[in-house]
Amino acid sequence: MTSYWTSSVSRVAGDKVMIRGYDLESLIGGQSFSASCFLLVRGRLPTPAELRVFDAVLNAVLDYALLKPGTVAARYTVSANPNMVAGLASAMLAIGPLTLAPEETGRFVAESYARYQSDGTSLEETAATIVDEARAQRRRIPGLGHPLFKRVDPRAAKLKQIAVAEGLWSERGELYELIHRRFVDAIDKPDMPINDVGMMAVVLLELGFSPAEMTGLAAMSTLPGVIAHVSEELRDGRPIRVVPDEDVDYGEAVARDFAADRAAAGWRPDTDDGQT
Amino acid sequence: MTSYWTSSVSRVAGDKVMIRGYDLESLIGGQSFSASCFLLVRGRLPTPAELRVFDAVLNAVLDYALLKPGTVAARYTVSANPNMVAGLASAMLAIGPLTLAPEETGRFVAESYARYQSDGTSLEETAATIVDEARAQRRRIPGLGHPLFKRVDPRAAKLKQIAVAEGLWSERGELYELIHRRFVDAIDKPDMPINDVGMMAVVLLELGFSPAEMTGLAAMSTLPGVIAHVSEELRDGRPIRVVPDEDVDYGEAVARDFAADRAAAGWRPDTDDGQT
Amino acid sequence: MTSYWTSSVSRVAGDKVMIRGYDLESLIGGQSFSASCFLLVRGRLPTPAELRVFDAVLNAVLDYALLKPGTVAARYTVSANPNMVAGLASAMLAIGPLTLAPEETGRFVAESYARYQSDGTSLEETAATIVDEARAQRRRIPGLGHPLFKRVDPRAAKLKQIAVAEGLWSERGELYELIHRRFVDAIDKPDMPINDVGMMAVVLLELGFSPAEMTGLAAMSTLPGVIAHVSEELRDGRPIRVVPDEDVDYGEAVARDFAADRAAAGWRPDTDDGQT
Amino acid sequence: MTSYWTSSVSRVAGDKVMIRGYDLESLIGGQSFSASCFLLVRGRLPTPAELRVFDAVLNAVLDYALLKPGTVAARYTVSANPNMVAGLASAMLAIGPLTLAPEETGRFVAESYARYQSDGTSLEETAATIVDEARAQRRRIPGLGHPLFKRVDPRAAKLKQIAVAEGLWSERGELYELIHRRFVDAIDKPDMPINDVGMMAVVLLELGFSPAEMTGLAAMSTLPGVIAHVSEELRDGRPIRVVPDEDVDYGEAVARDFAADRAAAGWRPDTDDGQT
Repeated sequence: MTSYWTSSVSRVAGDKVMIRGYDLESLIGGQSFSASCFLLVRGRLPTPAELRVFDAVLNAVLDYALLKPGTVAARYTVSANPNMVAGLASAMLAIGPLTLAPEETGRFVAESYARYQSDGTSLEETAATIVDEARAQRRRIPGLGHPLFKRVDPRAAKLKQIAVAEGLWSERGELYELIHRRFVDAIDKPDMPINDVGMMAVVLLELGFSPAEMTGLAAMSTLPGVIAHVSEELRDGRPIRVVPDEDVDYGEAVARDFAADRAAAGWRPDTDDGQT
Repeated sequence: MTSYWTSSVSRVAGDKVMIRGYDLESLIGGQSFSASCFLLVRGRLPTPAELRVFDAVLNAVLDYALLKPGTVAARYTVSANPNMVAGLASAMLAIGPLTLAPEETGRFVAESYARYQSDGTSLEETAATIVDEARAQRRRIPGLGHPLFKRVDPRAAKLKQIAVAEGLWSERGELYELIHRRFVDAIDKPDMPINDVGMMAVVLLELGFSPAEMTGLAAMSTLPGVIAHVSEELRDGRPIRVVPDEDVDYGEAVARDFAADRAAAGWRPDTDDGQT
Repeated sequence: MTSYWTSSVSRVAGDKVMIRGYDLESLIGGQSFSASCFLLVRGRLPTPAELRVFDAVLNAVLDYALLKPGTVAARYTVSANPNMVAGLASAMLAIGPLTLAPEETGRFVAESYARYQSDGTSLEETAATIVDEARAQRRRIPGLGHPLFKRVDPRAAKLKQIAVAEGLWSERGELYELIHRRFVDAIDKPDMPINDVGMMAVVLLELGFSPAEMTGLAAMSTLPGVIAHVSEELRDGRPIRVVPDEDVDYGEAVARDFAADRAAAGWRPDTDDGQT
Repeated sequence: MTSYWTSSVSRVAGDKVMIRGYDLESLIGGQSFSASCFLLVRGRLPTPAELRVFDAVLNAVLDYALLKPGTVAARYTVSANPNMVAGLASAMLAIGPLTLAPEETGRFVAESYARYQSDGTSLEETAATIVDEARAQRRRIPGLGHPLFKRVDPRAAKLKQIAVAEGLWSERGELYELIHRRFVDAIDKPDMPINDVGMMAVVLLELGFSPAEMTGLAAMSTLPGVIAHVSEELRDGRPIRVVPDEDVDYGEAVARDFAADRAAAGWRPDTDDGQT
């Protein structure tokens, strides 16, 4: 008979907490938090090279002032409900297809590479086919473009440089770069770089993480910034933040007549007691 | 042997869904959503008078433009993650002690009334004692004050009027009003009204709801507004909203020297490989 | 110059809160909560027939015992963090493609109907084409099937009956029913009914709501049940709920050797101080 | 004129992202993620000793099988809404006074130590006074007790040992230990240890973090485990998880008569159309 739940992440046995098979006590003081993060999600210890690359990934999108929607949402939230975890949860919820979630790129690169492996064509030919198809189907290539950075996103460049130096860069990354170059040429936007989230996806794929895990890791990597912002808001902020009226266009003021409109909608004032 | 879980809210028996003992099919088309809400939370059907008052409570704080933090948080959230439920959850999280949660007032009024019943003093005397003690202990009286409304919050006044008309106003409400008057006199702020959330608490107490339930109902009553705002944002909004730079004081720009500061903090550049 | 924000849901003008153009004070005691919900989201007052159908929709999926993941998530959440809004937000987050979100069906029915209108074929022919294409592309038809109900989901049937009686059933619903019948015949699963969430989508489309709004309304309609469950958990539940060990298969216990595995991964114990 | 917002966490200047004054590019590959976390929240770089202690804290409560409510809530959530960030947010919301939030202990230890400094009594005398007062006011001492560990929580012991070794243990920690010992003697529960979350509070206070920041850091430190569990659930779990019926006591089945009860509540079937 099978159990309703199965799990191999951790277990509590007697008075021991076992994390992926290791005694939790040996991890405390035994390795860095990033190494334990790698262990928990990947299921095994990282090598020194893997950890250097992993730490670089976790440093890639640390914070982005009040130009990141999740940070702003978190600060509005705690201005009304001064509670750290409410702020953290709120910031998490602003991670999705438009920002910070590498999973779409991760999936795209994995599928592109699988195709390269099965088609038997060169990297260049595979890239060309993929770009042509995407354009024919009016699909965008994920992981490209940034409001600020043109041609090169320096954070992405730094990530790649570290991955290459540590021997954790492969044909997968090359294929994605070929697709990128061919795509921006085709649409005549040579300025459009591979952005940091796109590069995170490539590198995390190399490290063996699944697309969903990539989004989880990207989300976690932004939390120190969120903690700092929420702490700042709780200490120095304004209770019950609003959007100042001068920043909003509420349109022309209209004053509708409730009783008249209700009658016009078919409600009889004498028999309908306002409760229907 | 006792089960790990117990619940009496609903059950599924054969192909019937039973809601507090009633066949769900009989409720669909059988009564309004508010009546079902009353049933689910209170465990019994409302009388017509109770439902009129309950509907009035659920209409009391429908929406408040972009002057409610939860609405703004929800709009920032979906500008990055265009997902309705992420927006709703974000708005929920901005409900707390500073706004929209009647539970503190509900608890205060219930305790004040219990004291009146056990002390055997008059309503006036009880009110005086409670205010004197609160002032001595520098505690605030919950449910009072509003940024916009002075002396009277018209939404609170309307709620009370309906509760009185339906026979659902008692000494509990009178005691709270006496406490309010005595308190604002004592601190010489006669303009400070009982606000809408404070009055919601009094009326929901009269209807038999617990403090935690009051906060749940207040939260639910704001959801139609949140749905409308999120829908508006998804349709007409801007992807990846920010706080415009002109609204932020980032302080004086400082450029710190990472390598120098790291050395000063005790890190040896040659042996520490940047991974510690 | 355009404002950074635009909104027409509500505004605060002087000491008046205007909801879609109506003075909030006139709504309190002036109409039911459902009517205000319709007003906020649709932007106009409902007719009596529209409101009867809308109330039926809001009653369609009120609660589902401990067989709804969001309810269970909310109860686990408040067992550790006894806070009503944390529970509500948690329940919201368990609404998605697999359950309770009518938006996919709403989008599907709207697109199917638009195709019917542009193709100039009969309802039957359009249904046949759509089913054939879906099968060829191995896409599922949304809104079908239920673990409990075979052939007919009685809640869906009741909803349709009310919509028909109120004159709010059109060729859109007929087209979806034709698609349903043709599809279940084609895959030889005649037992598979249109489920309640599927029918909610059809009816809410008829009432003029957008797909995202449908999900918001479905989410709101489940909140009274969530409030009731969270209240029950806060009052009678167990602090810090777990999954009992007998319900979990943690696999075979392995005890890994941290020091040995770390050395094998390439870490030098004498120079790496456990911090890398 | 003051800006509506102020922030000193990060800024974007030209094409540079500055994190607490440091160029983000220098941090990528320049230090570990924990070091950047310390920097973002504390506002300055850690020393090697501080980072060793900080990493130990972040490893203290990594995961706890399916015995942690937030993990279970997250898995229920994604069984219905297969979305990583919904799972992470759900897990965050299950952190509160009953589990994982060190802030109450942090506040208690800070206040106790401030009292020691101002009273001019010995550590022992201060501890005695604080315990006596707490018992007289029937207040509990936060940070004590664990369902599994008796006398000593080995994770707490390990944390203290590392803090002592790194010179980051002071009279603050000693005072808390004196309070602990005196309290468990007074209530005759000598088995009750200082738990891991209590010890995290002491150590994070020593590192200069505020109580709210402690809760944020504890929350972040559990995220790798949550990511692992959500990933496992998305890959191997069951869609739409329930609580199996055999684990629930739904009480005795009652079938109430909706029409009769509604009439008894005062509703007239002929004039009220079921919509009130």
